[in-house]
Amino acid sequence: MSYIKIPSHLVPSDPQGSDLLALEREKATFNVKELTLALYGSKELEKDNRILKILENDPVFDKSNLYFMGRTELFENALRKDKRLVQLIKEHKWNMEEIQAAVSFIDLPGPYGLHRGMFIPTIFGQGTEEQKKKFLIPALKYEIIGCYAQTELGHGSNVQGLETTATYIPETDEFEINSPYLTASKWWIGGLGRTANHAIVMAQLKSNGKDYGPHPFIIQIRGLETHQPLPGITVGDIGPKFGYNATDNGFMLFDHVRIPRFNMLSKFSQIKKGTGEYISPPNDKLSYGTMVFIRAMIVTSVRTSLARAATIAIRYSAVRRQFVDKDQPKKSKDGRIVETSVLDYTMQQYRLFPSSSGDFSLLADLHASSSGLKSLTTTMAVDSIEECRRACGGHGYSNFGGFVTFYQNYLPNITWEGDNYILTHQTTRYLLKTFREVVSNKNPEIYASQSKKNPTLTYILDYINNPNQVCNATTSLDFKNNELQLRAFGHRAAYLIANAVDQIDNQNKSWNSMLIEVNRISRAHCQYLLVKNFITAIQEQPQPITDEKLRILHSSPALKKVMESVCNLFVLHTMEKEIGEFFECRFITDSEAKLLRTQVYDLLQEIRPNAVSLVDAFNIPEFVLQSALGRYDGKVYETMIDWASKEPLNGITLDVNPNSEVLFRNKNKAKL
Amino acid sequence: MSYIKIPSHLVPSDPQGSDLLALEREKATFNVKELTLALYGSKELEKDNRILKILENDPVFDKSNLYFMGRTELFENALRKDKRLVQLIKEHKWNMEEIQAAVSFIDLPGPYGLHRGMFIPTIFGQGTEEQKKKFLIPALKYEIIGCYAQTELGHGSNVQGLETTATYIPETDEFEINSPYLTASKWWIGGLGRTANHAIVMAQLKSNGKDYGPHPFIIQIRGLETHQPLPGITVGDIGPKFGYNATDNGFMLFDHVRIPRFNMLSKFSQIKKGTGEYISPPNDKLSYGTMVFIRAMIVTSVRTSLARAATIAIRYSAVRRQFVDKDQPKKSKDGRIVETSVLDYTMQQYRLFPSSSGDFSLLADLHASSSGLKSLTTTMAVDSIEECRRACGGHGYSNFGGFVTFYQNYLPNITWEGDNYILTHQTTRYLLKTFREVVSNKNPEIYASQSKKNPTLTYILDYINNPNQVCNATTSLDFKNNELQLRAFGHRAAYLIANAVDQIDNQNKSWNSMLIEVNRISRAHCQYLLVKNFITAIQEQPQPITDEKLRILHSSPALKKVMESVCNLFVLHTMEKEIGEFFECRFITDSEAKLLRTQVYDLLQEIRPNAVSLVDAFNIPEFVLQSALGRYDGKVYETMIDWASKEPLNGITLDVNPNSEVLFRNKNKAKL
Repeated sequence: MSYIKIPSHLVPSDPQGSDLLALEREKATFNVKELTLALYGSKELEKDNRILKILENDPVFDKSNLYFMGRTELFENALRKDKRLVQLIKEHKWNMEEIQAAVSFIDLPGPYGLHRGMFIPTIFGQGTEEQKKKFLIPALKYEIIGCYAQTELGHGSNVQGLETTATYIPETDEFEINSPYLTASKWWIGGLGRTANHAIVMAQLKSNGKDYGPHPFIIQIRGLETHQPLPGITVGDIGPKFGYNATDNGFMLFDHVRIPRFNMLSKFSQIKKGTGEYISPPNDKLSYGTMVFIRAMIVTSVRTSLARAATIAIRYSAVRRQFVDKDQPKKSKDGRIVETSVLDYTMQQYRLFPSSSGDFSLLADLHASSSGLKSLTTTMAVDSIEECRRACGGHGYSNFGGFVTFYQNYLPNITWEGDNYILTHQTTRYLLKTFREVVSNKNPEIYASQSKKNPTLTYILDYINNPNQVCNATTSLDFKNNELQLRAFGHRAAYLIANAVDQIDNQNKSWNSMLIEVNRISRAHCQYLLVKNFITAIQEQPQPITDEKLRILHSSPALKKVMESVCNLFVLHTMEKEIGEFFECRFITDSEAKLLRTQVYDLLQEIRPNAVSLVDAFNIPEFVLQSALGRYDGKVYETMIDWASKEPLNGITLDVNPNSEVLFRNKNKAKL
Repeated sequence: MSYIKIPSHLVPSDPQGSDLLALEREKATFNVKELTLALYGSKELEKDNRILKILENDPVFDKSNLYFMGRTELFENALRKDKRLVQLIKEHKWNMEEIQAAVSFIDLPGPYGLHRGMFIPTIFGQGTEEQKKKFLIPALKYEIIGCYAQTELGHGSNVQGLETTATYIPETDEFEINSPYLTASKWWIGGLGRTANHAIVMAQLKSNGKDYGPHPFIIQIRGLETHQPLPGITVGDIGPKFGYNATDNGFMLFDHVRIPRFNMLSKFSQIKKGTGEYISPPNDKLSYGTMVFIRAMIVTSVRTSLARAATIAIRYSAVRRQFVDKDQPKKSKDGRIVETSVLDYTMQQYRLFPSSSGDFSLLADLHASSSGLKSLTTTMAVDSIEECRRACGGHGYSNFGGFVTFYQNYLPNITWEGDNYILTHQTTRYLLKTFREVVSNKNPEIYASQSKKNPTLTYILDYINNPNQVCNATTSLDFKNNELQLRAFGHRAAYLIANAVDQIDNQNKSWNSMLIEVNRISRAHCQYLLVKNFITAIQEQPQPITDEKLRILHSSPALKKVMESVCNLFVLHTMEKEIGEFFECRFITDSEAKLLRTQVYDLLQEIRPNAVSLVDAFNIPEFVLQSALGRYDGKVYETMIDWASKEPLNGITLDVNPNSEVLFRNKNKAKL
């Protein structure tokens, strides 16, 4: 609904956005559809298009008023969409990938998300057959709705420190679930606040006076008819957040709540009836399966997020013009001097092109379960989205730009499923251990044979064999050499690892005093993995190429060429950003660093003609972008003003006299 | 209003936040009140306390429901507060500083903000006496409410490119204001959307077929009685934004609107009656006065913002405990091993202490009108606020943490009043010009005599005299030497400048191809200024010290000592962050860089005991913090759950059956 009539005869001043984008698209040196196919594969594209069409044509999934909604209204909208999604899943018999695609197109994380994403998978993975019969079947039918209650008000990353207790009561063959402290309150639990009637609760298992650490229990928390909390349970929504406000993250306290022994998820560990004897799991790691899976999903989804931000920023930068570049003034068709597209300024290219290149670095599938990779890639994504937003100037700050809610909803990725700083500990511990093993091993040939499969071993062995490796570049072109690039990233990572091992093992440094290095090492290693992964994907492949995406990429010389530029920019821009560490490990000299920078600038020019077409190839639908700035058709300004006319505040008339007690004249009788 | 009753017998698990903060405060090596006084001075503190008390006791300024409000409700709340503020200003006869303090305590930028901040000052600075009589007097009485309409949908930074026209019509002695294109629509204008009935409009002045560039005009835009737009004017709110949603930023289009010639602000340039002759201003720069003033205000306010973020993050990090540090396990009073305060982890210190140290870098007053300083300091502030938020883990993402709306409202500072990237052009142009002048001057003694007053000349001369300057550190302690620190920052800035001058003058590089360097140069120079400013404030002062703040600082050896640590951390952490450039200019070697890092880590330990007391000294009232995490009393968890119980969503009962069309059972009959 428009509150204000915009004069219909007005158009943006020339040149029009649509013309500017058309010119950009003419300049492309490769076929956009081919690249889209190389990125996603034909099967995924077919599936995405099919599902998108269904959602776009269903009025429940309309997004036109989302930017204007307060929290309650937004939550209501999300519940409506989640219900409709369940109906569609049933109607179309969608599988997991199809559901995932629909969720990502709907792009409004809502109340059922954790039921599907955590409750069901956890019962599936950790429940016995009887437990699956009792809970999984009704959960799959949405007869019960669940959530996964692990983190507490006082404990997040340190799962061992959780305070909720589950004490076995042999007399009644029950567990008593209790929150002994305020800090024991479950907190941040998605879907718990207002939605779930069941929860998987992680609680400290106690039996016969002994503590067995955190274990999962299924607990009914609300009446199925009344939807009111059951006795002894205090539960509610934790309040507004930076983003994710359509999800009811909740809190929950238990006051000595009894549940049957049956409700402890017992695929791996059990308590014996009556005796309370604890039967321990065959393998400690088994129960972490869900987490590793979710972490890998997060890494995979980084690409879409980077692509979405780059699409908006690069399209808008082609349409947006600012100042006349005096050294190279642009002219319109009729010969007038016009302002220069922002995309022609090197600073803008430097801010935007590396983001979009980072996207392609996940071109081949990475073994993405590494915690360090989750840490590195989500931090990269958050920073890139915000950099893209800032590069859009004032309009990037408007919700209509398409960044605001997108960024706000993406943001928790750097904190949840393992805080990005804490996650680096795990990766670095593994790297230090590997280094020590290689050094202490008398027979390095064993590693040499394994190192083809294990890139970490490759670069550690290279470093041990040649710790004084140097760059040896004499022209800026040398930096385009993939072998040099891999040597650089491998040497730097190995140097940092060797240095840390020395400090801990020989200088008795404590782990705490090494935490800043720990973070540097994980980042260096994971940057090496991304660089290696990207280079591997575009290097000569063994024939015949079985992977469809790689086959498409390698069958088009034009495509391969542009991907080589993008790969070089990703690698060399990363190197430039981290140049201090390449200096520190003596890989590079100050004059080589200048050559490196020259090459980065040259690559920006090399990529410039393809910039818009590269983001077109990401194929992000308008239904997802929801951006006035990033529209495929370039109608930036028409959309901004059209959407502004729909702002509900525009239906309200104020009384601006400071002495009058009336605030809104026509809406309600709000008084001072 | 609480929707959920929280069991009253529960407390957080030990140790309590209040005890932990008390322990922290015992460890301080300096007097907190003394530092507060040295930071603000007695007069400012007295004024702040007086005004704070008035606001805290007035129910209109209550903040307890702000985090739950949607945009319309928030805007209504802001209008109410703005009206009340006008009444208080009148009642207490507050002057500009007092009003400024009140606005910053209320901390909800609302509809009257630009009337006070831009409309009135612009008439004051650029109106004739007659214009002041007609517009300033009623504006000061709030009989008319104005705004300042400069930026347009298609133009922000490039003021010369504005499209709104003001054509002189000699026949009627009027100007005709017109928006020839959609892109000419005024956009982002604070207070224009729903509030203002007058606007200062920047429009391209045309007379007798000639263009005279952008000039300011006062235009009545809404009826004083009806508050409806006047004929020919289309005006409204531009919609939701990342933050600042209590302000009605607006858009406006003119369809050949006539205004009297009198309404062109004519202190500097005029159009002559009838002839349309243009009388040009004596000095082109004069009309930019308001902008320079606002820019300086932004730099000054950086301190409060940094202080606010650091206060929340450091207090919460003292209260929040996570894992047991195995090398140094902490014990409670009763001898139990307890988890380690997050503040004891070096990574956390490394993330937080530099932010709070940056705050003190504005200890002495900087000549803050430099555009580069606005660019550097606001980017620092935005990044630090977000780093502090992220360092608070999950709870930093909750609005109750106190970062979310604060960050969102601070964010536009990097874009408005000169985009932070574009602003660096101005500073770098000046630096290159200065360098060229010094080099080409036959008589460098002239500069040597000026250089005491002008630090830029000092470091440029030093560089020209000794372009191969090196660090020459042999121990990590050498980095605490202020002279070395200043040499480092001066040498690096001068090197970058010299290098850019060479590329432009000798290698014919275009300005556009240099933009990345332009940005680096401005940053290097402004970091030098901050470093120099901080060092100057804590170095030996000429006696007697007239400035009250400096006198207090220098009269307490304990205070001076802690400020020396903080200064060293600020300087050396900045150096470490930018280490690539110190390598590149050959100032530092790889082994010296290791010593530098060692010193940074040592400084974290040096500052650790004072961390909480340093942020206490910032003296940010709870009324401003609005943070469950950053409370002075450490009652973090009690507050989180209390506030959660007030979330309005907790008053709503869902129907979660996906096949039921009912969404909310008890609120309204919302249907699928």
